[in-house]
Amino acid sequence: MATKPGLPSLLTLRPFPFIPSFQEKFSNQFTTIKRSDLSVPLNEFLEKECQSVKALIGGGRTAITKEILNCLPSLGCIVLTCTGLDHIDLDECKKRSVAVCNAGTVFSEDVADFAIGLLIDVLRRMSSADRFVRAGVWPIKGEFPLGSKLSGKRVGIVGLGSIGSEVAKRLKAFHCTISYTSRNKKPSVPFSYYTNVVDLAFNNDVLILTFELNRETFHIINKDVMTALGEKGVIINVGRGALIDEKEMVRCLVQGEIGGAGLDVFENEPHVPEELFGLDNVVLAPHKAVLTHESFSDLHELVISNLEAFFSNKPFLSVVKYD
Amino acid sequence: MATKPGLPSLLTLRPFPFIPSFQEKFSNQFTTIKRSDLSVPLNEFLEKECQSVKALIGGGRTAITKEILNCLPSLGCIVLTCTGLDHIDLDECKKRSVAVCNAGTVFSEDVADFAIGLLIDVLRRMSSADRFVRAGVWPIKGEFPLGSKLSGKRVGIVGLGSIGSEVAKRLKAFHCTISYTSRNKKPSVPFSYYTNVVDLAFNNDVLILTFELNRETFHIINKDVMTALGEKGVIINVGRGALIDEKEMVRCLVQGEIGGAGLDVFENEPHVPEELFGLDNVVLAPHKAVLTHESFSDLHELVISNLEAFFSNKPFLSVVKYD
Repeated sequence: MATKPGLPSLLTLRPFPFIPSFQEKFSNQFTTIKRSDLSVPLNEFLEKECQSVKALIGGGRTAITKEILNCLPSLGCIVLTCTGLDHIDLDECKKRSVAVCNAGTVFSEDVADFAIGLLIDVLRRMSSADRFVRAGVWPIKGEFPLGSKLSGKRVGIVGLGSIGSEVAKRLKAFHCTISYTSRNKKPSVPFSYYTNVVDLAFNNDVLILTFELNRETFHIINKDVMTALGEKGVIINVGRGALIDEKEMVRCLVQGEIGGAGLDVFENEPHVPEELFGLDNVVLAPHKAVLTHESFSDLHELVISNLEAFFSNKPFLSVVKYD
Repeated sequence: MATKPGLPSLLTLRPFPFIPSFQEKFSNQFTTIKRSDLSVPLNEFLEKECQSVKALIGGGRTAITKEILNCLPSLGCIVLTCTGLDHIDLDECKKRSVAVCNAGTVFSEDVADFAIGLLIDVLRRMSSADRFVRAGVWPIKGEFPLGSKLSGKRVGIVGLGSIGSEVAKRLKAFHCTISYTSRNKKPSVPFSYYTNVVDLAFNNDVLILTFELNRETFHIINKDVMTALGEKGVIINVGRGALIDEKEMVRCLVQGEIGGAGLDVFENEPHVPEELFGLDNVVLAPHKAVLTHESFSDLHELVISNLEAFFSNKPFLSVVKYD
């Protein structure tokens, strides 16, 4: 695509904006370069058309590798539409002084709200109650079983980053007792810290997973953790599916070795283990904790603001800090 | 039933305890008189066997009328297993210096938790998402529609009593803007007050109903209120079904004149309007907001403590204050 004279040009490795109403605002400020012909290899396209590109927009599915960075010698800034950074070679970015902006905390409130919703739903059997009423069996079967109280529960947060902190804020209003595990103890946090997730599970009624997924956190919720959590224990996962050994969790749920689960993420999405479909102590969601209409709109504002900041040499709104 | 010597005797107008594990504790402290032969009229039973009865346990379904009080000349105390008092002739109780203890705030946290759960569920389409996943259509249909953000919403609470106040506490943690209507403005409350529910609806995204039902509040949520709330507005009802003109609400939901509803209570329970069964913007529950295993157990402790207080002349834990 030809660049408009006078407007800064961007490489868009994923289409942007996603929301049509932002199109005008965006194209009034920037001109975009994109690989229209997907038969041309990415490297070739970058080397041919992007030698002067100073900024790019990337998403969660396009890895930014050393090879890609090698093809973009003028790059100064990567603006991501996602929060996760595991697909970005941050060492190489740092070495080249390429700034990386991510979605920051735009989604944290939504994810935290959803986590609390899943927790209330599992404890109070809300989706199950909704099925009961919709099936028309209330007048026939009468009483629906009692649920368990949220207020006063001991809740362990696995990963106390921006999402985990928002979860904790909300849980305090429900009079829950909060503790956490995290890579390191956070000095400014008043909650009990556990160095490992087995101890956290043993001392809590609920685990809420907000960790990012990496080599250390893969299957961090394993059989030992579930045994420690116990037969009344509840797991809420709004992190990533592979934080849990899913096969083992399904077995624990089916056999009553843990009490319930609220799951927004799964190991092999969009495939969900069918053994879960018949269980009333689980609530299942199709990876939707992360965003709403409102936060999606906020993301667009943030991406545009970060690009404006870059091209006018002002401070970024959500830049990744290098160690 | 013969009274045990030495133990104070109680009239039980409804069976108590409900939880078998409380039986021993209860029968070690009190002996109960109950109408075993239901063919004997209540008045006759009371006049024959209850002339010396000082305390009774009642529930939500047995009215305590002037006629009943006339048959119980020694009565000093009524201990209820419910919160509502609309079935108790309080004027007559006051006139005779009969103390009335209700369930106090034992259920307030559970109802508030459930109200928040319903709200998150409606806004974030949680039960609907659960149906989507369980139906196995995620891999086929792909994207599930985005929901709407709770954080930042303007929420109007209809009735700011003990439940409404617990709801407000929780909503603050979700960064909601709270306002309310109530019989009177509460001087110690920092939220905006509206004198009527139409204005409250017009200025909010969500209405949460916690009012008790009486002649003034019957169908308080009528067509005008729903029109004021508007097509994106959400109603959460954890009060009583007849607070809402249900027929009108169903019409508004079906025709998209309001945005959604989370309903634990209905006008003609256990019958729920079937038009709601096919809607994805409603969440339906079988009148289960009020209690959990934990609060049910707390209720038993409270009833027993109030009776202990009465028979040992100590202060009650949850006595109804007469004007």
